[in-house]
Amino acid sequence: MRTEKEKMLAGEMYNPADPVLLKDREEARRKVRIYNQTLETEGEKRSKLLKELLGSTGENVYMEPNIRFDYGYNTHVGENFFANFDCTILDVCEVRFGDNCMLAPGVQIYTATHPLNPTERNSGKEYAIPITFGNNVWIGGSAVINPGVTVGDNVVIASGAVVTKDVPDNVVVGGNPAKVIKQIEI
Amino acid sequence: MRTEKEKMLAGEMYNPADPVLLKDREEARRKVRIYNQTLETEGEKRSKLLKELLGSTGENVYMEPNIRFDYGYNTHVGENFFANFDCTILDVCEVRFGDNCMLAPGVQIYTATHPLNPTERNSGKEYAIPITFGNNVWIGGSAVINPGVTVGDNVVIASGAVVTKDVPDNVVVGGNPAKVIKQIEI
Amino acid sequence: MRTEKEKMLAGEMYNPADPVLLKDREEARRKVRIYNQTLETEGEKRSKLLKELLGSTGENVYMEPNIRFDYGYNTHVGENFFANFDCTILDVCEVRFGDNCMLAPGVQIYTATHPLNPTERNSGKEYAIPITFGNNVWIGGSAVINPGVTVGDNVVIASGAVVTKDVPDNVVVGGNPAKVIKQIEI
Repeated sequence: MRTEKEKMLAGEMYNPADPVLLKDREEARRKVRIYNQTLETEGEKRSKLLKELLGSTGENVYMEPNIRFDYGYNTHVGENFFANFDCTILDVCEVRFGDNCMLAPGVQIYTATHPLNPTERNSGKEYAIPITFGNNVWIGGSAVINPGVTVGDNVVIASGAVVTKDVPDNVVVGGNPAKVIKQIEI
Repeated sequence: MRTEKEKMLAGEMYNPADPVLLKDREEARRKVRIYNQTLETEGEKRSKLLKELLGSTGENVYMEPNIRFDYGYNTHVGENFFANFDCTILDVCEVRFGDNCMLAPGVQIYTATHPLNPTERNSGKEYAIPITFGNNVWIGGSAVINPGVTVGDNVVIASGAVVTKDVPDNVVVGGNPAKVIKQIEI
Repeated sequence: MRTEKEKMLAGEMYNPADPVLLKDREEARRKVRIYNQTLETEGEKRSKLLKELLGSTGENVYMEPNIRFDYGYNTHVGENFFANFDCTILDVCEVRFGDNCMLAPGVQIYTATHPLNPTERNSGKEYAIPITFGNNVWIGGSAVINPGVTVGDNVVIASGAVVTKDVPDNVVVGGNPAKVIKQIEI
């Protein structure tokens, strides 16, 4: 029989009240709280804590507090990862970043979702869809990335964009819902 | 003579520097601060504190810190209320939720507003308009709900939506300003 | 030879890893952390700390925690400045407010920006463009103000607006990207 965690990671309906998942989320919240209590002089400690919290990271990684994660271990970031203040990553399924990705303040990345039908939704079961970013992606402030989105290489997501669909390489997207507003010459 | 609080709750222009209202907001900020300092292991304490902060609640209520409220006592939530990280409710007038409402991270609910005319606005007087949600409403991450909005039953508000008008039953709304983008079959 | 700080303030490409700038940002983060730890009963202390953090202020200034700034000293606010919960100001270049400006919760003001070309961006060099607000400006909740924007007098920016271009006097703007949606009669 498959565990609730296996179903969750496979993008299927799962029960978030499963004891293993409850414990994993509590542990992530503990790590996140400790991270958010570090001081501005503790850059090395922050880098070390991030490497313990996340699933995998490059050598050079940094996030400004306050950070928010559901599990932490489902988030994988490449080399030279930087996130400014108050970014939230609901990593119920995997969130993967290539190298040289930077997030402006208040970026929101949501793999988590729920059924549209209220009876199904009220059952408490839910599901998630992975999100992937290529290399050299810059996400502008307060942008929202929806479940299941794949973002290509060399992409700039404008501040305040709400990204609901995949984004090809070498473009700027913006608006709500986000659309391609510019090609980037490489 | 009517008090400033009575005017406020009636949706009329009132003076927020009124001593009673200043004290009520300070008390709400104190409760909110204590809530936001609770640990991830203190789920029962959080539920208890929420029941003391809010005007009325169902039995099963939970909000992930950090929460923000203006008064707290003007917010009424039904059974099975859940809010994810960092939701803000400016409950200058009443905010009412039916049963089974869930808020994703960063949801912003604003009853508070000000005159458009700068001379009137600079007087310091302001007003608010109640906001109401039906049963089984799911509000997506970073969505904004404007003063005076009434949302029906079984509604899904897309992530990043800015809701400026009433929303009927059984629909998904999204965009800025939010429009109906889908009917939900019940 | 010009310093990195001089280049930064002039809106030119600069190196944010410059030791002077690193120290200035660390000092701002320290002041911001202390501010965000003040209690709801310490209004006078908050006002005093803001006057020490910001470049210049009127007499009557207040911001609800949590505040976020890059430098603080590049932000100048006039008389009667009020910001509600959780506003973020990336003041890499100057941010100037006239008198009687009020910010609703979650307002995001970004002077900071980066090259669109990934090779240039990955060099680590970046730049910023000043942002200016006139008198009597009310910025609605969760609004985003982009680098280089100039906002006139008596302007209302709707909640959730993403302001990418200059805004003339006496208008309401809203949407993403923000457009004029109403004239205000003075």
